[in-house]
Amino acid sequence: MYKLLTKVQSPADLKEMPMEALDALSREIRTFLVENIPKTGGHLASNLGVVELTLALHRTFSVPRDKLIWDVGHQSYVHKLLTGRREKFTSLRQFGGLSGFPKCSESVYDCADTGHSSTAISTALGYAAARDLQGGEGESIAVVGDASFSGGLSMEALNHIAHCNHKVIVVLNDNQMSIGQVVGGFSQYLNKIRTRSSYYTVKRETSDFLHRIPFLGKPTVHVIKKIKRFLRYCVTPGVVFEKLGCRYLGPVDGHNIRQLCDTFSEAARIPQSVLVHVITTKGKGYPPAEEAPSRFHAVSPAGSTAESCSARFGKTVLDLGQTHERLVAISPSTPDASGLGAFMEKFPARFFDTGIAEAHAATFAAGLARGGLIPVLSVYSSFLQRAYDSLVHDIALSNLHVVLAVDRAGLVGRDGETHQGIFDLSFLTHIPNMAVLAPSDLHTLEEMLRYAVEKHTGPIAVRYPRGNMPPLSGPPFVYGKAAILRTGQHITLVTQGRMTHTALAAADLLAEKGISATVLDLRTAKPMDKDTVLEAARKTGAVITLEDNTAPGGIGQQLAAMLAGIGCRILTRAFPDTFIQQGTVEELMALYKMDAQSLAADAERMLKA
Amino acid sequence: MYKLLTKVQSPADLKEMPMEALDALSREIRTFLVENIPKTGGHLASNLGVVELTLALHRTFSVPRDKLIWDVGHQSYVHKLLTGRREKFTSLRQFGGLSGFPKCSESVYDCADTGHSSTAISTALGYAAARDLQGGEGESIAVVGDASFSGGLSMEALNHIAHCNHKVIVVLNDNQMSIGQVVGGFSQYLNKIRTRSSYYTVKRETSDFLHRIPFLGKPTVHVIKKIKRFLRYCVTPGVVFEKLGCRYLGPVDGHNIRQLCDTFSEAARIPQSVLVHVITTKGKGYPPAEEAPSRFHAVSPAGSTAESCSARFGKTVLDLGQTHERLVAISPSTPDASGLGAFMEKFPARFFDTGIAEAHAATFAAGLARGGLIPVLSVYSSFLQRAYDSLVHDIALSNLHVVLAVDRAGLVGRDGETHQGIFDLSFLTHIPNMAVLAPSDLHTLEEMLRYAVEKHTGPIAVRYPRGNMPPLSGPPFVYGKAAILRTGQHITLVTQGRMTHTALAAADLLAEKGISATVLDLRTAKPMDKDTVLEAARKTGAVITLEDNTAPGGIGQQLAAMLAGIGCRILTRAFPDTFIQQGTVEELMALYKMDAQSLAADAERMLKA
Repeated sequence: MYKLLTKVQSPADLKEMPMEALDALSREIRTFLVENIPKTGGHLASNLGVVELTLALHRTFSVPRDKLIWDVGHQSYVHKLLTGRREKFTSLRQFGGLSGFPKCSESVYDCADTGHSSTAISTALGYAAARDLQGGEGESIAVVGDASFSGGLSMEALNHIAHCNHKVIVVLNDNQMSIGQVVGGFSQYLNKIRTRSSYYTVKRETSDFLHRIPFLGKPTVHVIKKIKRFLRYCVTPGVVFEKLGCRYLGPVDGHNIRQLCDTFSEAARIPQSVLVHVITTKGKGYPPAEEAPSRFHAVSPAGSTAESCSARFGKTVLDLGQTHERLVAISPSTPDASGLGAFMEKFPARFFDTGIAEAHAATFAAGLARGGLIPVLSVYSSFLQRAYDSLVHDIALSNLHVVLAVDRAGLVGRDGETHQGIFDLSFLTHIPNMAVLAPSDLHTLEEMLRYAVEKHTGPIAVRYPRGNMPPLSGPPFVYGKAAILRTGQHITLVTQGRMTHTALAAADLLAEKGISATVLDLRTAKPMDKDTVLEAARKTGAVITLEDNTAPGGIGQQLAAMLAGIGCRILTRAFPDTFIQQGTVEELMALYKMDAQSLAADAERMLKA
Repeated sequence: MYKLLTKVQSPADLKEMPMEALDALSREIRTFLVENIPKTGGHLASNLGVVELTLALHRTFSVPRDKLIWDVGHQSYVHKLLTGRREKFTSLRQFGGLSGFPKCSESVYDCADTGHSSTAISTALGYAAARDLQGGEGESIAVVGDASFSGGLSMEALNHIAHCNHKVIVVLNDNQMSIGQVVGGFSQYLNKIRTRSSYYTVKRETSDFLHRIPFLGKPTVHVIKKIKRFLRYCVTPGVVFEKLGCRYLGPVDGHNIRQLCDTFSEAARIPQSVLVHVITTKGKGYPPAEEAPSRFHAVSPAGSTAESCSARFGKTVLDLGQTHERLVAISPSTPDASGLGAFMEKFPARFFDTGIAEAHAATFAAGLARGGLIPVLSVYSSFLQRAYDSLVHDIALSNLHVVLAVDRAGLVGRDGETHQGIFDLSFLTHIPNMAVLAPSDLHTLEEMLRYAVEKHTGPIAVRYPRGNMPPLSGPPFVYGKAAILRTGQHITLVTQGRMTHTALAAADLLAEKGISATVLDLRTAKPMDKDTVLEAARKTGAVITLEDNTAPGGIGQQLAAMLAGIGCRILTRAFPDTFIQQGTVEELMALYKMDAQSLAADAERMLKA
């Protein structure tokens, strides 16, 4: 079935294929992707868009001698297919299986472990400098989507490239959209290039050519060069890049392998850093994905139909938006997935998509709050890491009323290490003035959001997991108060958020063995309800804390310090001090002994000791 | 003496002064700055550079109706002088005195609390959107130095501005240098504008003018506009800004008040976002500062002559650089202050100044490490907050051998809230794979740096304070081992870094009262020397931890969790969960009960209880 694809064991095999075979191979690869990705789930549209681009890169360059860095990395499936990992695709994104992102531990052809946006140019420049300082060879290539250019890190790196004498090839994969829609001046600029220019095709550089004509003296060449430079200034589509010190080639048709190969060869010949502007179509070759690339950005094998936390967040913010005119919402490039689609449609003027720019989104929110509005900033936990200093310096320092909706907190599952939201309880709770809430069901999420918008006055984060949480019956939410969900004699389980369900299940298991547990749902992770915790701890004499966050700096350690004086036994359960791989949430919880069985066993052991 | 200056009680007073008086006033202000700043210490050169700029801004605009945001904010002294704070300048940067940065709590004329770079455009855009959504009026103005444009946050904000219909005036204060030297494509671009252009002077917009000529029909105007647009494309110095969707005015002579006022008025008339490019001279009007602006960037009233940690760091890295060819050093814009000046001179090819771009500096370091080099990245603790996700995602995830030299860790003193390095122990120790060392004297700093470069294999941070640390006699540094500096019976003091001296002094005070204390200098804050701590804790039964870091997520809480099982009393001493104001280190340590007396009193109380 995959006649050509099965012949490709490594990229070297591509170099010998005739061009026509590469065209046929690209069709096979598309069929493979459309056939296989829906089975495991994964990024379909973006990989369909880079089939020819990837083939041309591997045909022109020789990885790993040449370094190839995929920004974000969700578009590296074709690269994986061509680098000996075809047979592992059945395990894509599964526990112990093939990663959905580049992984140096998986293959020598992967040159960086990625997952977050806008890091590739910096990494490529590092590789390039290391190469030059050690007298090495090879190109250093960063493949970056247009959406990733709104991230400041990309711009910092481009700025530094111009100052350095270390050659980098930046391949701008311009698919004219990010997950949602690219925003900002940069994308408008690219759009102008696209609509005004015909495709770039490689021709000899004028000056090289001129130098070869023997009767033209140096001064003439100099003058012609000057004129050429002026003309380029007027007509080059990439004038912004050239002005910022980077040579520009493009735009190039990203689905024409010949043209791509020619352009990459040209880029390899140019002795300085160069940006190759490639126009691709997301979902290319698969009509449903071409028509609705946003829907096919990532596909899931079989989605849950239960209402997600993101959906409830979106509904609540929409509802709050009706009554509170000062409420505005911000999303760094993920409005739909965050649940803000309806708000965006209903209140377009009060909705801001900043592009992939988490730090700006946070500092911008600070400005909105200073101006008298109530900004609700929705960010995935692992991406909020990008905005840490903006939270500290721009929001918390001035104690501004900004509501952070921290989505995808805790384990996210199959996206793996880079997407697990396991640090936010640590990095948020140590920021002065920052309140941190964690709902244990959708109803409490709604209560908390209402409180955060309507009653709170400083910065406040509400963290909630990916997907759904089943309902719980507890008392109404009161800021700063823990909910006592179960009262027992022998042990106290202190938790919050999604883990509350685990604690309750553990309490059930313990009850079967005659052990009665108090279950406290902190709800307000910061400031902590010291009185309720102390009272329960004193009463039971034994405490286990449970949180879906890394152990260092988490709630457990903070509680341990708080309880240090009272002489009660305490065990803190959290993720160990390591990065958490991909897998289902259930698989990972069991692996790290964060499931109800393990927790009940912990409690038994503790009480026996 | 200050005839005119004493008459200015608020910016409104400027609006009535004749232009000649403003020129005279600018001379008075310069005299005032040169006279007063050296007494208290502070930023001299940058404030001398913005005298006319500040006068023109306050004459043209009306703060606080118009919002004026100073990026970084160290150049806000003239603004403070003009907004009723002249008499407080004797208390500049003193405990309880006038801040060296804008502070909303100080004056209604201060529109944001700042200290870090590149945040102003985001904040200004937030103010602008808030204004428009609420039907408010006034301009939103960000004054940003050229060096701050290398920060990705500035670029993220500029990108978003182009997408928004909310007008912002960005004043690019181009003084042709940052603290050191501006690097990168952006600054080279500005340099080309400066050298090729004559100064901008305001004239009527062509199209307005054309519309007023009655016999020119719409189509003619349209064609002329098109031609005009093409011509502007060819000749406008700010083509990059215009291409990115921001109107450009400039360059303007930043020391010509008339021209500045004209240009700002023009900027106010333009209905869309506009960038005003102002050329200033750092240190203007004070020859010593004009000649060596870097030396006069900040002046101190009376500096200590003892060798600083930065200096010892610089010496050690220079020395290590001689034997280790693979060692490279990186600084985000503070090479000299970080002690890397000599390394930069000796090994220019192995030194990288990234500009103010901490995130890129860290991700770039990751690339260098991937390429086989040993990068040493020197960053101030509070600025490293900018690179948090780069540390997590780009360095730690792949367990790369990057050495972080975390300078200005703990209290820095007079720079206040935004510069205190009190979060790094919290945000570094919860990053998987990250080792964290803290030397208690210069000798140990050197040992640690040698270990970090020569022996360690993953990411490792060495944190050290601003200024000097006196020598200590202790055992040689061993990675992962605490040093037992004193052995006692009654209590264990666990600390590291600069605080070790405080713990030893407290032990001396306790000894006078017959209380003998064990003093443990952890040295390796992570991974912690569990065995040594446990043994000492068991032996004394009482532990006090001491760290110059915020309490949440710090070493004390981590120790408390570790010691939870053994039933010993424990008290954690760290900075409370708040931002720490300006003052001398001694004043602040006493204020927060982090001095030897307080610690000894804590110990006594604990043992009596």
